[in-house]
Amino acid sequence: MRLVIVGGVAAGTKAAARARRVDPDLAITLFQDEACVAYSGCGQPYVLGGAIAEPDALIIRRPEDFARDRIDVRVRHHVTAIDPVGHRVHVHDLESDHREIVPYDRLILATGARAIVPAVPGIDLAGVTTLRGMAAMHRLLAELDNARGQRAVIVGGGYVGLELVEALAMRGLEVCLLERADYFPPRVDPEIAPMVRGLLDRKGVRIITGESLIRINGRGDRAESVLTSGGNTLPAQLVVLALGVRPAVELAAASGIRIGPTGAIAVDERMATSAPNVFAAGDCAESRHRLTQNATWLPLGDSANLQGRVAGENAAGGDARFPGVFGTSICKCFELAVGATGLTEADARLAGFDPITARIQAQDAARYYPGANPLTLKLVAEAGSGRLLGAQAAGTGRVDKLIDIAATALLGKLTCDDLQNADLAYAPPFSPVLSPIIVASGLLARKTRDRT
Amino acid sequence: MRLVIVGGVAAGTKAAARARRVDPDLAITLFQDEACVAYSGCGQPYVLGGAIAEPDALIIRRPEDFARDRIDVRVRHHVTAIDPVGHRVHVHDLESDHREIVPYDRLILATGARAIVPAVPGIDLAGVTTLRGMAAMHRLLAELDNARGQRAVIVGGGYVGLELVEALAMRGLEVCLLERADYFPPRVDPEIAPMVRGLLDRKGVRIITGESLIRINGRGDRAESVLTSGGNTLPAQLVVLALGVRPAVELAAASGIRIGPTGAIAVDERMATSAPNVFAAGDCAESRHRLTQNATWLPLGDSANLQGRVAGENAAGGDARFPGVFGTSICKCFELAVGATGLTEADARLAGFDPITARIQAQDAARYYPGANPLTLKLVAEAGSGRLLGAQAAGTGRVDKLIDIAATALLGKLTCDDLQNADLAYAPPFSPVLSPIIVASGLLARKTRDRT
Repeated sequence: MRLVIVGGVAAGTKAAARARRVDPDLAITLFQDEACVAYSGCGQPYVLGGAIAEPDALIIRRPEDFARDRIDVRVRHHVTAIDPVGHRVHVHDLESDHREIVPYDRLILATGARAIVPAVPGIDLAGVTTLRGMAAMHRLLAELDNARGQRAVIVGGGYVGLELVEALAMRGLEVCLLERADYFPPRVDPEIAPMVRGLLDRKGVRIITGESLIRINGRGDRAESVLTSGGNTLPAQLVVLALGVRPAVELAAASGIRIGPTGAIAVDERMATSAPNVFAAGDCAESRHRLTQNATWLPLGDSANLQGRVAGENAAGGDARFPGVFGTSICKCFELAVGATGLTEADARLAGFDPITARIQAQDAARYYPGANPLTLKLVAEAGSGRLLGAQAAGTGRVDKLIDIAATALLGKLTCDDLQNADLAYAPPFSPVLSPIIVASGLLARKTRDRT
Repeated sequence: MRLVIVGGVAAGTKAAARARRVDPDLAITLFQDEACVAYSGCGQPYVLGGAIAEPDALIIRRPEDFARDRIDVRVRHHVTAIDPVGHRVHVHDLESDHREIVPYDRLILATGARAIVPAVPGIDLAGVTTLRGMAAMHRLLAELDNARGQRAVIVGGGYVGLELVEALAMRGLEVCLLERADYFPPRVDPEIAPMVRGLLDRKGVRIITGESLIRINGRGDRAESVLTSGGNTLPAQLVVLALGVRPAVELAAASGIRIGPTGAIAVDERMATSAPNVFAAGDCAESRHRLTQNATWLPLGDSANLQGRVAGENAAGGDARFPGVFGTSICKCFELAVGATGLTEADARLAGFDPITARIQAQDAARYYPGANPLTLKLVAEAGSGRLLGAQAAGTGRVDKLIDIAATALLGKLTCDDLQNADLAYAPPFSPVLSPIIVASGLLARKTRDRT
C-alpha cells in the first residue's frame, strides 16, 4: 500500500505522521513545492517583528526527521496532475527538472492556499510582497534590513494584517493600514472593532478604512507610493498585501474532484473527496460549520492539523471523523488580543437565528490585583433557548481564555443559563470572582427570561 | 416583607444585592460580626505579600454603598440565635452591647467558615495566627512590619498555605512549610504535586511533609519554635495556621436547621434549608457535586457568590437554582499556578468510576514563541464512555485557561473524543497549534478505543 501526500506544512505533514502511526507498513511519499516541508506559517509575523531572532525556529521537522519514520519527503517537487482513475500523480522535480509518474493507493491533497494578489498596476514592483510560504518571509525579512524609518502600507485589516502592523512597527517602520471595509478586523461585530482601531491610533499607525488599493506607483522598479480609491497617495517603500488567501484547488479541479460552494475542495467528515481513495485536508479543504451546518472555509493552522490527523488516519485504513469548526480564531496586535468563536450577531441573523446579545466591560483578574487588564466581551445567544451561539472579546489580558471557554461551551451546546453557574477557576490573579463569561451569561439569561 | 441576612463578605452581600434587584420593595437588613461587610478574603495573601499596597483595596462595598440600595447593613452585630418558628433572630450589637429581637419573613444564613485551630500547647502565644477575616489580616500585617529575616512556619500545604508561603517570602521572611500529609497540595494527584515542591525548593522554602504540629514553644508570651511529630524543632517567630476552615453552623444547628453529611448546612438547589423561608449560602452551606451527585463542601469565593445570588433571588420571591459545583480551584504560588477541576484519579475511583488518564508535558504557547511556559496537564476520563471527569494542571503559564476549558467541558458532559477535535483559539502567543487539552484528549481517546 502506498500513500502519496501532495503538500506539507501543517495538514500534509500531520497526515503523514498519523498515517505512519496507524500503519507501520504503509509506504508514504510526500511531495512539497517549497524547500521547507514543515514549518509554522503562523509564527512568521514574529520573525518579521524580531521577537523570534532565528527564522529557522519556525521549522518543525526536516526531511531527515521524516526519514526516521520512513516517510519519504521530496521537497521542491511539484505535482502537476492527478489521474484519479489510474491512481497516479505526475510529479515535476523543480531542481533536476526530472518528471515522473507515481502510482498511489491512497492520496491526500494538502495543497494549501495562496495569497490573494490584486491585479492592479504596479503590483510587480520591488517592495511589494505577500506573506505566504517561507521564501516570501525571507524576502520580506531582507526588505526589513535597514528599513527603519521607511514607510510601509499594509493592505488588509484582517488578523494577518494586524500581526504585520505590529511586526513592521517593531522594526521601526512608519506603518499605514489600508482596509477596504468600513471597519476591521473581520469576524467581530462593530462594537468590538473600535478597541483595535483605538490601539493602532495610540501606536501611531495611520488607518484608512473604506478605501481600496487602486495602483502602486514606482520610482524605477521599486514601489514609492500607493494610490487609494479615495484619492489618497500614501508614500510606501514597502507594500505588504494581507488580503487573505484562496484555496489552492487547481490540481483537484483539473482532475474532476468536486469543489465545494466555498471554492475549496468538498470533503465529508472523513476528509474524503469525491474521488475514490483521495482525501483532502488543511487550507485547500472545506469544513462544516458546527452551528449552521453549512460548508465553510477558514484556513487556520489548528484546523489544518486536526484535518490532517483525520485524513492521515483514514488514508491508512482507520476511521476518524472531523466534526467541523466553530470558526474560533485569535490575533495579537501589540498588547491587544482580539478573538472570536461561533457566530457574530450579524452572522447569526444571516444564518436565520434570532440572536440576543450581552456586552460587558470587565477585567481579567480581580479589580484590586496589580496588572489586571481591561477587556470587552460580547456573547451572542439564541433567543428562547438561550443556547450560546458565539463570543467575541478584545483586550490586553486573558482574551484567549474567554474565547476558549466559549468555544468549549459551543461544543457542549450550553445555554447562558448553564454558563451563569459555571464553576470556573477563581483566584485573584487569574479572574474576577465571577468570570466575565458568567457575568455576561447572567445578563443573557435575564434577557431570555424577559423575552419569554 | 422583610429579609434578614446573617453574614456579609461574599455570599451575604451578593444575596442582598440580588434580592434588592428582584424586589425593589423588600426591606433588607444584613447583620455582620466583622467591622467590614464586603471584602475579598481571597485577596488577603497579596496584601500580606505587598503586591497590593493598600489593604483597603480589598473592600468591595461599604455600608453606605449598601444604604444607597436601601440595604440596611449593621456591622459589629452578632446574631446569637434564630427562632425559625417565631421567624425571629436575636441580635447583639457588639459595640453598644444592646440586644434586640428582629423579625423576618425570609432569612438567609451566610455565616461563613472559621479557621481550624488545633488544640496544641502554645497555640495562644503571640506570633501564632490564622488568616480569616479582616482583623486577622491586619494583625498578621502588623507582625510582618520589620519581620524581614525572621523565621516563619506555615502549617498546612493547601492553597492558602501556598499563597502564604509566597507572601511571607516576598516580605523577606525565611519560610518553612509543614504539611501533615505525604504530599501537597490537595486536590491534585501525586504526579502534579512534585512541580509545586520543586518550585518551593528552588525558592529556598524548607518543606516538611508527613509530620504534624505537636507544640509551639514560647519565649515569654511569644512563639519561638514549633515542635513537629517527627521530632523536628523549627525556629519560628511567626506561626501561621493554614489548616483549612470549618463551616460556621452553630447558629443553624442550635435552631434545628439540618446540617448535612459534610458538616455544612444542608440545602436544596434553591439554597433553601430545612427550615421554612430560611436559605443558606456561601462557606456555611453545602453544594452538590455535579459528577458524583454527592453533597460536597468546598468553601470558595466564586461558589459563595453564585450561591448568594441564588439565595437572594429566591428569598426575594424568585425561582433560581444552583446546580452545584465541579470543585474547580486554582492557586498561584510565586510564578507557578496549580489548578484542578472535577475529580482526581483517586477521587474518581472512590466515587466508583473506572478512570483512564493521560498526562502530558506541554507549553502554553508555540514552542518557538518567546516566553512560552512549560506546564503539566493531567486529564481523567471514564473508561468506556470517554466522558471527561477531571483535569489538573500546574505550570508557569496559562494553567487557568486549561482548567477553565476542562471545567466547561465537564459542564457540557463532553468526552475526550469531543475534545480532541475542539476548535480552540490558536495563535502562537496564546497556545501551541494543538492545545494541550486537545493533545491529552487525543491520548485518552486512543486509550478508550484500545480498552473497548
